[in-house]
Amino acid sequence: MKKYNFNAGPSMLPREVIENTAKQILDFNGSGLSLMEISHRAKDFQPVVDETVALIKELLDIPEGYSVIFLGGGASLQFMQIPANFLIKKAGYVNTGTWAKKAMKEAKHFGETIEVASSADDNYCHLPKDFTIPADLDYLHITTNNTIFGTELRKDIDSPVPLIADMSSDILSRPVDVSKYDAIYAGCQKNMGMAGVTCVILKNDKLGRAPRELPTMIDYNTHVSKGSMFNTPPVVPIYSVLETMRWVKAHGGVKEMDKRAQERARIVYDEIDRNKLFKGTVAVEDRSVMNLCFVMNEEYKDLEKPFLDFATERGMVGIKGHRSVGGFRASCYNAQTLEGVNALVQCMKDFEAQH
Amino acid sequence: MKKYNFNAGPSMLPREVIENTAKQILDFNGSGLSLMEISHRAKDFQPVVDETVALIKELLDIPEGYSVIFLGGGASLQFMQIPANFLIKKAGYVNTGTWAKKAMKEAKHFGETIEVASSADDNYCHLPKDFTIPADLDYLHITTNNTIFGTELRKDIDSPVPLIADMSSDILSRPVDVSKYDAIYAGCQKNMGMAGVTCVILKNDKLGRAPRELPTMIDYNTHVSKGSMFNTPPVVPIYSVLETMRWVKAHGGVKEMDKRAQERARIVYDEIDRNKLFKGTVAVEDRSVMNLCFVMNEEYKDLEKPFLDFATERGMVGIKGHRSVGGFRASCYNAQTLEGVNALVQCMKDFEAQH
Repeated sequence: MKKYNFNAGPSMLPREVIENTAKQILDFNGSGLSLMEISHRAKDFQPVVDETVALIKELLDIPEGYSVIFLGGGASLQFMQIPANFLIKKAGYVNTGTWAKKAMKEAKHFGETIEVASSADDNYCHLPKDFTIPADLDYLHITTNNTIFGTELRKDIDSPVPLIADMSSDILSRPVDVSKYDAIYAGCQKNMGMAGVTCVILKNDKLGRAPRELPTMIDYNTHVSKGSMFNTPPVVPIYSVLETMRWVKAHGGVKEMDKRAQERARIVYDEIDRNKLFKGTVAVEDRSVMNLCFVMNEEYKDLEKPFLDFATERGMVGIKGHRSVGGFRASCYNAQTLEGVNALVQCMKDFEAQH
Repeated sequence: MKKYNFNAGPSMLPREVIENTAKQILDFNGSGLSLMEISHRAKDFQPVVDETVALIKELLDIPEGYSVIFLGGGASLQFMQIPANFLIKKAGYVNTGTWAKKAMKEAKHFGETIEVASSADDNYCHLPKDFTIPADLDYLHITTNNTIFGTELRKDIDSPVPLIADMSSDILSRPVDVSKYDAIYAGCQKNMGMAGVTCVILKNDKLGRAPRELPTMIDYNTHVSKGSMFNTPPVVPIYSVLETMRWVKAHGGVKEMDKRAQERARIVYDEIDRNKLFKGTVAVEDRSVMNLCFVMNEEYKDLEKPFLDFATERGMVGIKGHRSVGGFRASCYNAQTLEGVNALVQCMKDFEAQH
């Protein structure tokens, strides 16, 4: 049976990314060696890193003066690496959910950290609005898409202080004005490739200002100056990013990704709003187009498990909602297809017809 | 032409590890999804982690009371993570080369760090001997195999203080008495799988003693308590470790790996010692069986580049020595074959016959 992958991350990737990665694992560039066993110093791996960086710069229209690096450890390691490198006296965080809170928690190890705004009181079902950003912050940290709660800030805000964003779950799904950010980071396992590599975009002239001696691996300068090759990078995960970037470019770039994401989200949210069984969990204006969260209407609560089983039998994978929200979550990253969301919607319709 | 992979890392892996990983990337366990796009929380990925941990414990005969975890960031991140977690007042390091020095450098961020012994004055061509380990150290750090200089401490020393070892380049190549160590770590890209994951073996009752608040991702307890699943782990790299562990077990375990390593090394070192063109760079008793370093004899120095070309034409890959030593380095990790080392030796003989 055909599977429709709605996993929240690691998540669906384009079939050609998967097949090309498998092919290079069997024989890298016809070298007779596997991608798994080539040296990262080999003369045919440097072009992989170079092309990946160039494609990310092209696709996100990154201005001069920024570096793109690849690190291990996941976005969770960035939660401490960002303040280690950028927090001088005081950092501000917008608390939009689990990941934003985790990021804020790590900053406290490095200096004063304030919560500039929060929607915790409403279980993060909307984004905080109309807050003031203190002018004395070293930076403001935002989480542009909240994978668990299904809210998304799908625009680049104006900030009077340097802006730093965790874009793990919506990078490359829309055009971004990178010049508004001092740093952007993203675990790659949603829109960029397989798990095991994190992409960090850094404004060069902002690095090295924090008043502390950093362990070598924590200092962004280490990785910027060595082009992600200070130590052995995650070779195969980086290759999967290259293939994904090629796919994004071949499919029209981030403008087209944006268009597709909006269309997929419209189809699913329209059904959520129409179907008597379901309701969305997020304020309409803040709905994520990456992670579409919905629950059973109160009177149909008992049907939650039956719907999950019904959808699973029809090939839906990964639609169980996170325990913080319950219900369902359809993650629709760049590789998600119209066929996939239509199959999900058909499930919802068919299940409704039975009840 | 058949290639013989002598890369220092990432390095040669068994063909079935490569093929099985590629197969799972195309379709993971017949699920219809790629290994690249399954959730790390999926019910069929937990068994991958569990089996990998169980196999490492079995193969290394790890006693009760130890945890095995997988982290991103490479052994270089462990250079800071080890002292962050273990350095209370004073740490000692045995300086046996580039990597040992790098490890020592990071410890200085966390407390007093002393060099207990060093062979730097002899360009690390032997291991330091007859040194005294101060009894007041929080731990002694050793690097069991020195990838660049080709020395190896192929036994478990007795230490009056807790022993911590970087075994990146010789783990699983011999039986180890794990009970002698409080921590062992290894970047997996040599004897354990593809690049992108680091294996850390930790004695549980020694964790959490260092007198500092640690960022969550730096604290080993985070990863031990969550079974390497605190955040998204490097899924595909971990899978490659599973396949490699299965291969090691199927091929006789670490005793057999040890026997094969000794045999390969004997064949190559015998030729280095016999051949008029070449000489080894390392004191005979300290020669690594993983990284076999040799240079041209003084009177044949001009033949260095010609031999490299000659060997390359015959399919040898990655035998250029590190710039710190010059000459040649044949890395013979677990997956290296007799066919490979015999091909290299034949190259050396044939080249000698021409000169």
